[in-house]
Amino acid sequence: MMKLDTKHAFLKEDILSYQDKVNAHHEALMNKTGKGNDFVGWVEWPNNYDKEEFERIKTVAAEIRNKCEVCVVCGIGGSYLGARAAIEMINGLYSKDKVEMIFLGNTFSSSYIAQVLDYIKDKEVCVNVISKSGTTTETSLAFRFLKQFMEEKYGKEEACKRIVATTDKARGTLKAIADKEEYETFVIPDDIGGRFSVITPVGLFPIAVAGIDIDAIMNGLKKAYDDMADPDLTKNDAYAYAVCRRILENQGKNVEMLVSYETQMTMVAEWWKQLFGESEGKEEKGNLPTSANFSTDLHSLGQFIQEGKKVLYETLLLVDKPMKDLTFPSDPENADGMNYLAGKSVDWVNKMACQGTLEAHEVTGGVPNLILTMDDMSAESFGYMCYFFFRACAMTCYLLDINPFNQPGVEVYKKNMFRLLGKN
Amino acid sequence: MMKLDTKHAFLKEDILSYQDKVNAHHEALMNKTGKGNDFVGWVEWPNNYDKEEFERIKTVAAEIRNKCEVCVVCGIGGSYLGARAAIEMINGLYSKDKVEMIFLGNTFSSSYIAQVLDYIKDKEVCVNVISKSGTTTETSLAFRFLKQFMEEKYGKEEACKRIVATTDKARGTLKAIADKEEYETFVIPDDIGGRFSVITPVGLFPIAVAGIDIDAIMNGLKKAYDDMADPDLTKNDAYAYAVCRRILENQGKNVEMLVSYETQMTMVAEWWKQLFGESEGKEEKGNLPTSANFSTDLHSLGQFIQEGKKVLYETLLLVDKPMKDLTFPSDPENADGMNYLAGKSVDWVNKMACQGTLEAHEVTGGVPNLILTMDDMSAESFGYMCYFFFRACAMTCYLLDINPFNQPGVEVYKKNMFRLLGKN
Repeated sequence: MMKLDTKHAFLKEDILSYQDKVNAHHEALMNKTGKGNDFVGWVEWPNNYDKEEFERIKTVAAEIRNKCEVCVVCGIGGSYLGARAAIEMINGLYSKDKVEMIFLGNTFSSSYIAQVLDYIKDKEVCVNVISKSGTTTETSLAFRFLKQFMEEKYGKEEACKRIVATTDKARGTLKAIADKEEYETFVIPDDIGGRFSVITPVGLFPIAVAGIDIDAIMNGLKKAYDDMADPDLTKNDAYAYAVCRRILENQGKNVEMLVSYETQMTMVAEWWKQLFGESEGKEEKGNLPTSANFSTDLHSLGQFIQEGKKVLYETLLLVDKPMKDLTFPSDPENADGMNYLAGKSVDWVNKMACQGTLEAHEVTGGVPNLILTMDDMSAESFGYMCYFFFRACAMTCYLLDINPFNQPGVEVYKKNMFRLLGKN
Repeated sequence: MMKLDTKHAFLKEDILSYQDKVNAHHEALMNKTGKGNDFVGWVEWPNNYDKEEFERIKTVAAEIRNKCEVCVVCGIGGSYLGARAAIEMINGLYSKDKVEMIFLGNTFSSSYIAQVLDYIKDKEVCVNVISKSGTTTETSLAFRFLKQFMEEKYGKEEACKRIVATTDKARGTLKAIADKEEYETFVIPDDIGGRFSVITPVGLFPIAVAGIDIDAIMNGLKKAYDDMADPDLTKNDAYAYAVCRRILENQGKNVEMLVSYETQMTMVAEWWKQLFGESEGKEEKGNLPTSANFSTDLHSLGQFIQEGKKVLYETLLLVDKPMKDLTFPSDPENADGMNYLAGKSVDWVNKMACQGTLEAHEVTGGVPNLILTMDDMSAESFGYMCYFFFRACAMTCYLLDINPFNQPGVEVYKKNMFRLLGKN
């Protein structure tokens, strides 16, 4: 479940006044008649994903878990952020899981690539390379290093058993390599774009390798699907959130800051930034997506939010139940003066910090706050959240009359780069 | 060294037209007659830091390195970001250094605190707790857990030898505890605020525990100090950067995005956000500081920057020499089609990506780009960069007629929180 609270958002328009538009866009989305309708495969995915492949993901992930200490996931953008967001949110940041997940193929930094290659040198390693075409330069570059590393370390035959490719079902450079080397492969659907792909093998396989229950993710997806059948804005919080973003933009707010109070949600915010920024940032429209982690960043960005230029609104992404709670211990000496919290739950303290901050930013700072609350940081909640944001994202873009599913602007730097690199 | 290039910034005012104002503010800063003049201890710090204490930092850090696998640094804001930024930038993200640095005391997340306490349970641990007053709630809360953990694990006597406190020289709760328990202590100067404190024991001690040469940091500081003696805007790039920020703001840009092409610079950007956001975000003024890591985030935020709403300018923080370079290997089969890069330096590829992106954002996207280039990611360059940004920050705030050194807005949430927590 995910609930929206708009009481602290200073909305100057009535959300319900958007109901007719929302109904029309909802229909266009469900009937595949809206903009970008060749990339709405994610809409019915909770029902019609490939069940056989899904079982194979679990089987292969279990095998990989048995033979590696490190799994290197080689991908960028949607082939990186979703899996990392899920794994960090669900397993936490200092997980003792037996498999360490490392992300590569997402940078040209030689310093980073060299250090990862050195770090994994003496460890048991498996690789999951993810690319629809196999021509994404960051990923291809890193994968050539990884492939040679694996073949040197394990010999050709064993290396091929330790590399899993997630790619197009039939075509492309990576598919050809995978076929030739007989890698295990999983399919990236044709009609689901990168930033929506965490719910496909792109995300699910590395998530399963990290020991997470992917059945639970699919359950969460399905629940969200069911909850969003009705576009009624008094019931559909994803669409209501989509409308709120437009209302706040109409009020002159050009920046949205996604705020969490759980450190392990940091990468969820990065994933969310891609989802909304890449979907909406077109035709000189859209809200710049930014993020912060509180109370940590209250000690860095808090001053600006409280008293700086009024450019932003906050969207709090709150979690009802923490992964683990602690009781604050008593101390007979009380030298630190903290006994007023003795016996209290630390999560309660976190929630009081949140409430106090909300009040500070809202009342004194005049900063609008939207509040989204999820139940917990479980796999099921992750699935639910993904689908919630997918629907919200599609709706908020349709309300701007923008195609949510293309990314024409990403090609510009690539074209320049290829020219500079001398690629024909 | 750090160099500014403004050729891609679309500046509509002449930087040099600010020279008179800059001269006056420079004088006020150096003579301690400007706003917030009780917190300008950092200005002369490269010359007058406590040399004896500095030597003791190195000695104690070496002892700590000999007896721990994990050093937990317990602090928040300036007592967290600077050290983490330095350690990640200089050692990289998959360092094989024998001491693992973990940051705590910077969150109320029970999930995070519980997981860290569990993670360090069976490891050899030392602790550095950092707080001027000892009443920062996040830090005090975590430190009570840590203190009890250490005393249980090692017994009182050994625990006290494994805890180092960085705090006020004479007063406050943490100082009292440290005296009573006979912890080794280092001093937080009275006239240097948190976001400038990475160059004091606050940052230097954990940086030294991470095996980094802190003499080199001080050398970098001193070089920057010398290079900035002259406020002449044709020579002083820190001040020129300060002026550019104001010019771009006058042109309607309210968001600055600090962009790096090295993954290990991510926390430097977080540190920079505190420095500029907390210094400048007052009286409804200032540019919202945000950050991105390219080319990684070109696959998430790139679309928005290229074609979305024109709210931001970019400040590239580039690095001339990488920590490590790699030569892209040849492959006789060339199944991935990447042989056009065979024999090329990966860092060169990174730099071509940067150049292609700059061109894309500037020419097609119309996004102003400031470029700051540092020599490398060494300890000396870190020191230089800190002092460069300190001077730039002071100047850019003075140009807005703002006190750069207070943070009145940070208190608001604390007051509310204390009320909700029932603190008297």
